[in-house]
Amino acid sequence: MGLSYLVYPGAHHTRFHHALGCMHLMQKAIRVLHFKGIGITPEEEEALYIAILLHDIGHGPFSHAMEHSIVESVSHESISLLFMEKMNADFDGALTLAIQIFKGEYHRNFLHQLISSQLDMDRLDYLKRDSFYTGVAEGNINSERLITMLAVINDELVVEAKGIYSVEKFLLSRRLMYWQVYLHKTSLVAENLLIRVLKRAKELIDKSVALSASEALSFFLQHKITGQNFSSSVLEIFSKLDDYDIVMAMKEWSASSDVVLSKLSAMIINRDLLKIEISTQPFDVTTEKDKIKKCALLLDISEQEAQYFVFSGTIANQAYHQNKQNINILYESDKIVDIVQATDQFNLEALSKPVTKYFMCYPKHKD
Amino acid sequence: MGLSYLVYPGAHHTRFHHALGCMHLMQKAIRVLHFKGIGITPEEEEALYIAILLHDIGHGPFSHAMEHSIVESVSHESISLLFMEKMNADFDGALTLAIQIFKGEYHRNFLHQLISSQLDMDRLDYLKRDSFYTGVAEGNINSERLITMLAVINDELVVEAKGIYSVEKFLLSRRLMYWQVYLHKTSLVAENLLIRVLKRAKELIDKSVALSASEALSFFLQHKITGQNFSSSVLEIFSKLDDYDIVMAMKEWSASSDVVLSKLSAMIINRDLLKIEISTQPFDVTTEKDKIKKCALLLDISEQEAQYFVFSGTIANQAYHQNKQNINILYESDKIVDIVQATDQFNLEALSKPVTKYFMCYPKHKD
Amino acid sequence: MGLSYLVYPGAHHTRFHHALGCMHLMQKAIRVLHFKGIGITPEEEEALYIAILLHDIGHGPFSHAMEHSIVESVSHESISLLFMEKMNADFDGALTLAIQIFKGEYHRNFLHQLISSQLDMDRLDYLKRDSFYTGVAEGNINSERLITMLAVINDELVVEAKGIYSVEKFLLSRRLMYWQVYLHKTSLVAENLLIRVLKRAKELIDKSVALSASEALSFFLQHKITGQNFSSSVLEIFSKLDDYDIVMAMKEWSASSDVVLSKLSAMIINRDLLKIEISTQPFDVTTEKDKIKKCALLLDISEQEAQYFVFSGTIANQAYHQNKQNINILYESDKIVDIVQATDQFNLEALSKPVTKYFMCYPKHKD
Amino acid sequence: MGLSYLVYPGAHHTRFHHALGCMHLMQKAIRVLHFKGIGITPEEEEALYIAILLHDIGHGPFSHAMEHSIVESVSHESISLLFMEKMNADFDGALTLAIQIFKGEYHRNFLHQLISSQLDMDRLDYLKRDSFYTGVAEGNINSERLITMLAVINDELVVEAKGIYSVEKFLLSRRLMYWQVYLHKTSLVAENLLIRVLKRAKELIDKSVALSASEALSFFLQHKITGQNFSSSVLEIFSKLDDYDIVMAMKEWSASSDVVLSKLSAMIINRDLLKIEISTQPFDVTTEKDKIKKCALLLDISEQEAQYFVFSGTIANQAYHQNKQNINILYESDKIVDIVQATDQFNLEALSKPVTKYFMCYPKHKD
Repeated sequence: MGLSYLVYPGAHHTRFHHALGCMHLMQKAIRVLHFKGIGITPEEEEALYIAILLHDIGHGPFSHAMEHSIVESVSHESISLLFMEKMNADFDGALTLAIQIFKGEYHRNFLHQLISSQLDMDRLDYLKRDSFYTGVAEGNINSERLITMLAVINDELVVEAKGIYSVEKFLLSRRLMYWQVYLHKTSLVAENLLIRVLKRAKELIDKSVALSASEALSFFLQHKITGQNFSSSVLEIFSKLDDYDIVMAMKEWSASSDVVLSKLSAMIINRDLLKIEISTQPFDVTTEKDKIKKCALLLDISEQEAQYFVFSGTIANQAYHQNKQNINILYESDKIVDIVQATDQFNLEALSKPVTKYFMCYPKHKD
Repeated sequence: MGLSYLVYPGAHHTRFHHALGCMHLMQKAIRVLHFKGIGITPEEEEALYIAILLHDIGHGPFSHAMEHSIVESVSHESISLLFMEKMNADFDGALTLAIQIFKGEYHRNFLHQLISSQLDMDRLDYLKRDSFYTGVAEGNINSERLITMLAVINDELVVEAKGIYSVEKFLLSRRLMYWQVYLHKTSLVAENLLIRVLKRAKELIDKSVALSASEALSFFLQHKITGQNFSSSVLEIFSKLDDYDIVMAMKEWSASSDVVLSKLSAMIINRDLLKIEISTQPFDVTTEKDKIKKCALLLDISEQEAQYFVFSGTIANQAYHQNKQNINILYESDKIVDIVQATDQFNLEALSKPVTKYFMCYPKHKD
Repeated sequence: MGLSYLVYPGAHHTRFHHALGCMHLMQKAIRVLHFKGIGITPEEEEALYIAILLHDIGHGPFSHAMEHSIVESVSHESISLLFMEKMNADFDGALTLAIQIFKGEYHRNFLHQLISSQLDMDRLDYLKRDSFYTGVAEGNINSERLITMLAVINDELVVEAKGIYSVEKFLLSRRLMYWQVYLHKTSLVAENLLIRVLKRAKELIDKSVALSASEALSFFLQHKITGQNFSSSVLEIFSKLDDYDIVMAMKEWSASSDVVLSKLSAMIINRDLLKIEISTQPFDVTTEKDKIKKCALLLDISEQEAQYFVFSGTIANQAYHQNKQNINILYESDKIVDIVQATDQFNLEALSKPVTKYFMCYPKHKD
Repeated sequence: MGLSYLVYPGAHHTRFHHALGCMHLMQKAIRVLHFKGIGITPEEEEALYIAILLHDIGHGPFSHAMEHSIVESVSHESISLLFMEKMNADFDGALTLAIQIFKGEYHRNFLHQLISSQLDMDRLDYLKRDSFYTGVAEGNINSERLITMLAVINDELVVEAKGIYSVEKFLLSRRLMYWQVYLHKTSLVAENLLIRVLKRAKELIDKSVALSASEALSFFLQHKITGQNFSSSVLEIFSKLDDYDIVMAMKEWSASSDVVLSKLSAMIINRDLLKIEISTQPFDVTTEKDKIKKCALLLDISEQEAQYFVFSGTIANQAYHQNKQNINILYESDKIVDIVQATDQFNLEALSKPVTKYFMCYPKHKD
């Protein structure tokens, strides 16, 4: 949830909670499938638990911001995989099957779909959990029922026809949670500021400016880490990095002599953020340029530096992706139809088209 | 909820709970509007509480079934009004303002809309309550937030723009609850059986067959009551009629010597209902006729009587009605847009078109 | 919960809900014991489910009132047993083991304790459920944790030492629920009135007064049923008797020509009950006699009949019974101590002494 | 809750949540008292909100540990007061009344009791909240009902007699939460380790060892702050100190060259704590001395240093304090009785006696 607690103060749940929750749902799913006669061996069961417990372990602190600043070209899935492989070595191959399932290389595809698909245990847990902790009650989904409706046909996960309204509701909740929570405009500003804090810090360190930071954070500020040089010693350091490193750094940097770094950091720490406008149309380039000039003048910084405070971008939300691990509905005992075709009225096609919005951030006007 | 507890055993909540719940939401709504500077006098406030507490008092037992059998041409709203007028006489005019608001004759229209519109306290309570007691978690709505978003413009109730996702979610939940709960196929059979039980009982009584029934129920079985002859003494008797009269009668009628009445009654009491098929297309008339013949033969009754066990019909669901107490969204401080136009992606237009389905009921085949 | 809904309007849950809840807890308990290495065979497991689902089936409508009026000398446990034996005959002996466990005749005593003891699944369900539906939040217990703490030593159910605070809390909740809910003074009046309604009806029928009642209820009013003559045909009729029979009768009897019966019935139906006083001391006999005289005069009935409206009695509550299926606490791996000795401070001994209170009911004074 | 999340992973709620919760309960309490005719002026109301929102603001990070290490002789209440006085200066005296009420210097004593007494809004919120977030369901209290039962007699807060079971339950929950959560043995070890981490850090800094720490934390490690020298500039620095400073420091110190500091820090960070024994008797001094010697030998440190890892102490819990802002029960309209005398059975006197337990911590034995 990154910095969402700045908007929804209740949202203080952790990734550990989420991992336990996914595990819990996986246990239910396995019980349901067993009950329906789908054989799952004890080895496969254990592998599913391992894979779901570890599926998010590669997320760094404020993950999405990190992916745009510090470990730029490395996805969290690939880091999760590195962790699993490290553990597999430590535990003499005990994670081999879990890794195969996680990577989708195991022959029974529905096991992979329980870990990663448009109706996986991950989504079933986080939508419900985030809805609960934010208090956005409309985002609540019926994971219990969705799991009870699961079945397996030709090694593919499907949903029994009478669960169709729950699937619709699930997709709608996903869309609602995106706009109302994950892409909430205040979180959006905060996340963009955090990306820029880290970018500025890297820039300063490249210029040999001394910056207070934990050892682990310092390492990632000083080195350009990519998928290529993400060695096991990098992984070790990465594992030490958490929210404390980032927030503590921003607290110290709020008093930095670099006006850009100190202002950006203080904005997050004091929750005194930039103004943000959202529109269905792109913003006028001239307006943005004007604001940059004004900001540069006001803060006595270069126009290039002013772009840390005045910037624009896009956000997109697509509740359902056709042709990508579809959600399939099962009729009678073997007829399978994609949810978009199966629904009788509600225009799910709309949900499968991405919606793009434009935003522009700039300092609050003080006269 | 009528006979929904045959499908959702938790659904044992009562109309009294609903009345208290509506009252509770009304208190919240008034507090919110006060806070936004909408003046509501203490007299208007009291009238709103009276009107919302009594809005459903005209519902008889298993109301919807009754309206199709016993008090055929009289709506529950008009009976609620009769009760209010009776009380108004008893309490020396203390309900006059409540009645005006209930009837929509008071000059401040938003007060009426709090009682009766597409976003009234009635709907906000029953959707949430029914979702809770049935366990159909997806039907949950965020009444708290919807109420907080209410405002009044030109004496009309509107919803502030940032509540738009909650409104969408509310309409979706409404649709989902209709298909999943209110029009659930098993409830549908049960309700249709109940209508036929009462119809058959009237028929037998017309033929002077003696039937065990409470005094109140006997009265309505013996007389044809319409809006015209619904006198205050009829109202008095009507007020004594509740679920106990109906269920007790069916329990006794299960042992009736009339095979039609006893079988229909026993089907409900023993929850051993007719089979039902649902389709998006009308059913073939020949099939129905065949089933009627077969049933007549099997039970040794006339083909006309067999139509108590073999019948077809339609159900329709329309989540949103345009041009009928619209839900209006407020932009900035005065721009008002209907929800269907206001939504950015999700095809609410679809929701405002009625969906019709066809059903056919007939005895379970026993070979 | 009998007539508790007259005090707690939310308390509309049913015995069916309770049976399902007990079953659910039993599944958890079995899973926990399995996990701790206590072998339970599939046959024993099935028997436990049957026994817990049926343990309360012998309760008639408003059970406690019935036991004092209609089926006077027959406990609901013995009727449950009759039902089980009937089903056992129908199902070719499939309930034999369930019956043995239910009666405590099976050699593994802990199985019986799961069904019936001071920490059985029955209590764990009803305390939590009644606390939830009445809204008496303090009565809430942690069934989940209590079950997780269960263990078996020498075929006896025990609670691991670290669950001790949960047991204390469970006993306290039990006491609180008794005073606050089960023995709530308004429920107490209502229940005593119901007993007297049925007693009066029997009296009138003995005098050949015609009374409207369902067939099943009529049977029990006309016959004196004891443990001796509770034949299978009686059981058949008993199975048809439910709340509807009783409430419908009282609705009709409210208009009875017998003033005692009509007044008693109307008091319950219209929730216009007798006044009740509670005291830690017995009431003065003279006061009671005076009130009886006054009542007889006022209603123009005999003094004997007036005792239907003026009466006194006692209520007792004992949260914990020593020497009767004790709750035992397990220290280390084999030391077992009764909860009363095990607790370190809180005076549980007090809880194991019965508390008796006195009550007197009489008509409300109207000047 | 300090380090309780090491035991109860769900316990991630914050002091901000608690402040909002208290505010919410205060609004309810004021509404109830208004309804009962207790006049509270708008100024008093506002002052109550200010005082309850700020009552805990003086808590530092891991407050209880801090009070034993860094700001040794200064209570959090006195720091809360310093913050309020600072704000009062900034806001031109707007907090004067709030401060008077907070200090108990205002003539209407019940207002102070709402802020601070044995049944204040603080306790009503934190017991319920901590019970919820830890999942220790037995600790749940019925704040709603307790508040509804509040009344004021002679400017003193009292509880109406019919709320007596809820008060009993509240005291029991308090006791249960103390043993089960606040004094849970694992939290106890963790808290004692944290105290020693900070103590060791101060010791090292006194010896001029360089230690990585945030500016704010460094200040408190370098200076001995007491109630005497807690100036407004100290307050300013104190306000910058939060959990991030402490946890980040421990993360860095885990790699310190000082073996005592690094081991203590790592124990908390890696949740690999000391072993703890709890007893109702004091521990034998010889055993402790032996363990100290063994530890010194094993870690190659002095015996004095070994006392960082081997130590003993006491914990005490007293659920109710007689003669200190008693909880008084109101009978009829003016008879007031202390809860301990008022209760009819349950030995509350036991609850008003402190219970003391002894603990000893030492390194886990590794053979």
